[in-house]
Amino acid sequence: MAQSVLPSYLRDSWWTPTAPQRPTEVADASTGAPVALVSTEGLDTAAAVEHGRTVGQRSLGELTIHERALLLKEIAAYLNSRKQELYDVSYATGATDKDHLSDIDGGIGTLFTFSSKGRRELPNSNVIVDGPVEVLAKDKSFQGEHVYTRRPGVAVQINAFNFPVWGMLEKFAPAFVAGVPTIVKPATPTGYVTQACVRMMVESGLLPEGSLQLIAGSARDLLDHLDHRDFVAFTGSATTARMLQEHPAVRERGLTFTAETDSLNAAVLGPDAVPGTPEFDAFIKAVMVEMTYKAGQKCTAIRRVIVPREQVEAVVEALADRLNARVTVGDPRTQGTTMGPLASIEQRDEVARAVDRLVAAGGVVRLGGSGSVEGAPAEGAFFAPTILGFEDADTPAVHEVEAFGPVTSVLGYADVADAVRLVALGGGSLVATVCTHDPETARAFAEGIAAHHGRLHYLDRDDMRTSTGHGSPLPHLVHGGPGRAGGGEELGGIRGVKHYMQRTAVQGSPDLLTAITGIWHQGATANTATRSAVEAGEVEHPFRKSLRTLRVGDQFVSDLRTVGLQDILDFAAATGDTFYAHTDAEAAAANPFFPRQVAHGYLLVAWAAGLFVDPAPGPVLANYGLDNLRFVTPVTWDDAIRVTLTAKQITPRVTDEYGEVAWDTVITNQQDEVVATYDVLTLVSKEPRG
Amino acid sequence: MAQSVLPSYLRDSWWTPTAPQRPTEVADASTGAPVALVSTEGLDTAAAVEHGRTVGQRSLGELTIHERALLLKEIAAYLNSRKQELYDVSYATGATDKDHLSDIDGGIGTLFTFSSKGRRELPNSNVIVDGPVEVLAKDKSFQGEHVYTRRPGVAVQINAFNFPVWGMLEKFAPAFVAGVPTIVKPATPTGYVTQACVRMMVESGLLPEGSLQLIAGSARDLLDHLDHRDFVAFTGSATTARMLQEHPAVRERGLTFTAETDSLNAAVLGPDAVPGTPEFDAFIKAVMVEMTYKAGQKCTAIRRVIVPREQVEAVVEALADRLNARVTVGDPRTQGTTMGPLASIEQRDEVARAVDRLVAAGGVVRLGGSGSVEGAPAEGAFFAPTILGFEDADTPAVHEVEAFGPVTSVLGYADVADAVRLVALGGGSLVATVCTHDPETARAFAEGIAAHHGRLHYLDRDDMRTSTGHGSPLPHLVHGGPGRAGGGEELGGIRGVKHYMQRTAVQGSPDLLTAITGIWHQGATANTATRSAVEAGEVEHPFRKSLRTLRVGDQFVSDLRTVGLQDILDFAAATGDTFYAHTDAEAAAANPFFPRQVAHGYLLVAWAAGLFVDPAPGPVLANYGLDNLRFVTPVTWDDAIRVTLTAKQITPRVTDEYGEVAWDTVITNQQDEVVATYDVLTLVSKEPRG
Repeated sequence: MAQSVLPSYLRDSWWTPTAPQRPTEVADASTGAPVALVSTEGLDTAAAVEHGRTVGQRSLGELTIHERALLLKEIAAYLNSRKQELYDVSYATGATDKDHLSDIDGGIGTLFTFSSKGRRELPNSNVIVDGPVEVLAKDKSFQGEHVYTRRPGVAVQINAFNFPVWGMLEKFAPAFVAGVPTIVKPATPTGYVTQACVRMMVESGLLPEGSLQLIAGSARDLLDHLDHRDFVAFTGSATTARMLQEHPAVRERGLTFTAETDSLNAAVLGPDAVPGTPEFDAFIKAVMVEMTYKAGQKCTAIRRVIVPREQVEAVVEALADRLNARVTVGDPRTQGTTMGPLASIEQRDEVARAVDRLVAAGGVVRLGGSGSVEGAPAEGAFFAPTILGFEDADTPAVHEVEAFGPVTSVLGYADVADAVRLVALGGGSLVATVCTHDPETARAFAEGIAAHHGRLHYLDRDDMRTSTGHGSPLPHLVHGGPGRAGGGEELGGIRGVKHYMQRTAVQGSPDLLTAITGIWHQGATANTATRSAVEAGEVEHPFRKSLRTLRVGDQFVSDLRTVGLQDILDFAAATGDTFYAHTDAEAAAANPFFPRQVAHGYLLVAWAAGLFVDPAPGPVLANYGLDNLRFVTPVTWDDAIRVTLTAKQITPRVTDEYGEVAWDTVITNQQDEVVATYDVLTLVSKEPRG
Repeated sequence: MAQSVLPSYLRDSWWTPTAPQRPTEVADASTGAPVALVSTEGLDTAAAVEHGRTVGQRSLGELTIHERALLLKEIAAYLNSRKQELYDVSYATGATDKDHLSDIDGGIGTLFTFSSKGRRELPNSNVIVDGPVEVLAKDKSFQGEHVYTRRPGVAVQINAFNFPVWGMLEKFAPAFVAGVPTIVKPATPTGYVTQACVRMMVESGLLPEGSLQLIAGSARDLLDHLDHRDFVAFTGSATTARMLQEHPAVRERGLTFTAETDSLNAAVLGPDAVPGTPEFDAFIKAVMVEMTYKAGQKCTAIRRVIVPREQVEAVVEALADRLNARVTVGDPRTQGTTMGPLASIEQRDEVARAVDRLVAAGGVVRLGGSGSVEGAPAEGAFFAPTILGFEDADTPAVHEVEAFGPVTSVLGYADVADAVRLVALGGGSLVATVCTHDPETARAFAEGIAAHHGRLHYLDRDDMRTSTGHGSPLPHLVHGGPGRAGGGEELGGIRGVKHYMQRTAVQGSPDLLTAITGIWHQGATANTATRSAVEAGEVEHPFRKSLRTLRVGDQFVSDLRTVGLQDILDFAAATGDTFYAHTDAEAAAANPFFPRQVAHGYLLVAWAAGLFVDPAPGPVLANYGLDNLRFVTPVTWDDAIRVTLTAKQITPRVTDEYGEVAWDTVITNQQDEVVATYDVLTLVSKEPRG
């Protein structure tokens, strides 16, 4: 055995056990040839944890969310440029070229998505504000709100064998954006692919110190060193999840543990989706794809095909026909192969045992079964696509036994309520597909089964060409599910980032909340420039400040301007907005909300812009939008308005010469009553202009 | 013993065990007199769970979120009218009049807040949409988003003895708004107060069938009947939490279990808050209040007072002086009492043991201690306010041992980094107070300790008069904390409601997503009225429809209107908005975002209103605001604009003759490019008008 042991990546360098006693041998799934030796004997897990908590936290904390998100894009681009190397390594796991798309391209795509979302949807700081401020005192001197800050520990991944690349990157991306260092522990049978990916990431030179470590084999006593600061995201069997959950780190030291485990995902054919409809064909195709993609080794694969009783035979026949016509099982390196072997001989045997259990419980093999695959080499972990039928759809085994391969069971239902009941027997799943074109059926299923699922996928003639599919978790949408599915939640865009952070309520005075969040709060100290002071040259209009000098709290207060009846009528004439509340004295007075003819809301915001504008070219490049506009007090003729504009949030872009500035805007009347509130959104250059 | 056993409320009727073998005797905390007998011997917990899942789910599901929220307000008003009765019962627990404010008034206030927030911040339906839609196909035929739907089981509360009313209502309110039936299991020592409150709620006649059940004593085998559909919110000791967490319902059946347990909350005196500052005095006052309110029997009480080393003596002295001057321990029914006994003799003995452990670890008693309280009756569970000092602030016991009574320890720190480190030694807490007036200190503590806490309370001269206090969880803000605090999260406004719901990603065509959410999606079928068809009398303008006939998808498409250069200049002159991009050809062309002079954004939205308006009085009463306005493509002179307005979300108010209608609004140009998108918010009457 000339092979060397797969190295781990610890404390920013590669590590291999010196003389491991019993390394695990990993074999090629198709040929049985040796691929890798795996051992972590003597690995110092405590040092890895400590390195993440100190060096990793420090190096990530020196960057902002946007800076980390941008790094993620660069790492993704680097991996993209070398992905053929990953494909080449990954064939040995049994993955076909098509399978690589979900694992390798899918993983890289997840980095791109989190990079983009991190920069578009999160602030360029390290504190994420959650929801609106709650003003807890009338004079605004005491306020409360929620902030997310990163967890102060490490993010440990314990991954399944089926997605060696995506499985790592889909957890790494949100943790990285959040600023939490990762320790990856891949599954032994395919860990060499994860290792190859980590090696590339290291070679990219883009990883901040301590931000990623790899334990290429058993995690040993890793959990012994974790506590409430840390986070473990596990993907794998319910049995292992249970074992981990009983560890004192979880039970006694408050370690956050989430799991994504077994799931007997259902696909339901709606009563309207009878043979001959586009939905029926789309359904058969979707089930086939889920059975054969990754040879059915997907947590999200369809295990239960739930169809109207009268369609059971039609579905079984159509599915069998399609599988027979389209699927060629073999070595993925062989031309023409459309489905590879399972990941290992052990996996093949486990799937065979599960099929035997289902048959013993009453399942009838309608296609395939546990025998060997015709024409496929005996030393490979091949398994034929298998359809089981059940006379009794309530058979407990079919809702409990997960055959983690190209295996599905077809069950008949009586009506929608019965189908809802059968789906729920899965005890909580990752995803279900509902195939219907009827809105009322769609609604009834959502009401009945949404709470048992992490994701619901609706398939009909409108989306069958564009759907990303039942089995594909998207970085934009949450992945996970209640009950048997483990109760965890991953991805979901910035929701996924927040899982690596702690939500904390903060209460205090507006000045301190401004300091903590970096966002100006109403009632906080402001640096005020009135129109007259600006015109006298005493102070600078905040619109004349570039991001270099602009600070939150910089404020402009306009003069008062009186609204005349003729102004209202002129505005109505110019804009065409002749709504009676502006133009008809009698009708306006009859409206329950208005005293008499009132100014248009759009007149108020347009005039406010006239009151706060600084007309000459300068650092403010554009007003690109407006948020949360609320008209609070009507303005009638002979009232006057004043606008107060305060720099609320400043978000410099990491890749542009400008950034976003949101201005807290309040229009008041001559009695200082609030007329309208909103945020004006502008683009402001980083350097002086104009 | 003529007393009868405290009844439970099960399946909508009162139940008492027929001949309990060994009921628990509960005594008055001050006098030792018998108060109640407690037993649930023979209680059918399976039937209670089944009743909640069937009858409770059905009756709550027949109401919308707003209808349930309104009921909550009515229940709150009813309890408010009878709260003196609850005070009278509650004295026996040792609670003073002031203590009743947090438990009884605080509990009722929580119902009011959730009623108000449920109606203001949530849709009037049973599906809550979370975050924006993700358009997953260019042609919009496949989209994804997240929805919350209620959990399909029961919400079980297992509560602590210290807040028999608030403890129930703070969990009941969000579950009720979510539509999930509750089973309450109060702590035996004070369960008779909870029982009195449940009795009133039943007598109000306002509770939907099966929405509330009470197990007045041991929960027996309740957990044996729970699974992934259900939710258990536990408040109490970490030991009990651990025991419950090991139950097969949690470990194997996916029951969601959250805990709020021990917490060694800290209060930090900032380096700037030296004696003589308003902060120093506010700090001493806050610590005293937390020590004596509920006799220190609060999960949120301050256990660790962390102050600059050089201020330790000043703090101990000032605190001791204030406690000596202001605190009178006694029977809460006695005039002049400011602090009552602990809840029971057992509690008193447990606190004494905890103090002994702290002393054994190096604590020095600076005030009070484990002896009996002078002048207080020996049969009562009285305990004197106690201050401990520690030479070594790193003593593990002081960060681990919770003396659940009027006991606090004073520790010295070297600098802010040291204080941050000491606070974190608590291993995760519910709340910390930071007393500082310095923004930079405030920020440094947030960065250092926020992730170890559920809530941070900042105290300074600005909020010391208006602060609701360190120890008061507010319904608006989350309550809970990581690590030792149990890792749970409650309250937080609608965040709390969502804990009783499942978040599910839904993917599908816009028509089906519209059906599922009740909210119109771009790309979905619309019922279009063009201006010309309206004018020809062929169709009705959607603004002429009351809520009785208006449906999501009702759409108005305007004519095109050309914007001339003179229009832009006139708008600039009328509004005063003479920004160079509108008025100066040369400067406009130099701006990186504009081709040449462009129309004001506010001109576009004002003209859009002119294009979609229906001028005569009708069901649309007012435009009260606008959300998410984004200017996508600049409009220059000689361009033309058209507006398309589609009824997106309809929210009838349960207490008014009108409701809110949000209109999806898109302005396009003569080339059908999107110019601007936003939501127009209107009030529309339920019945035809005008």
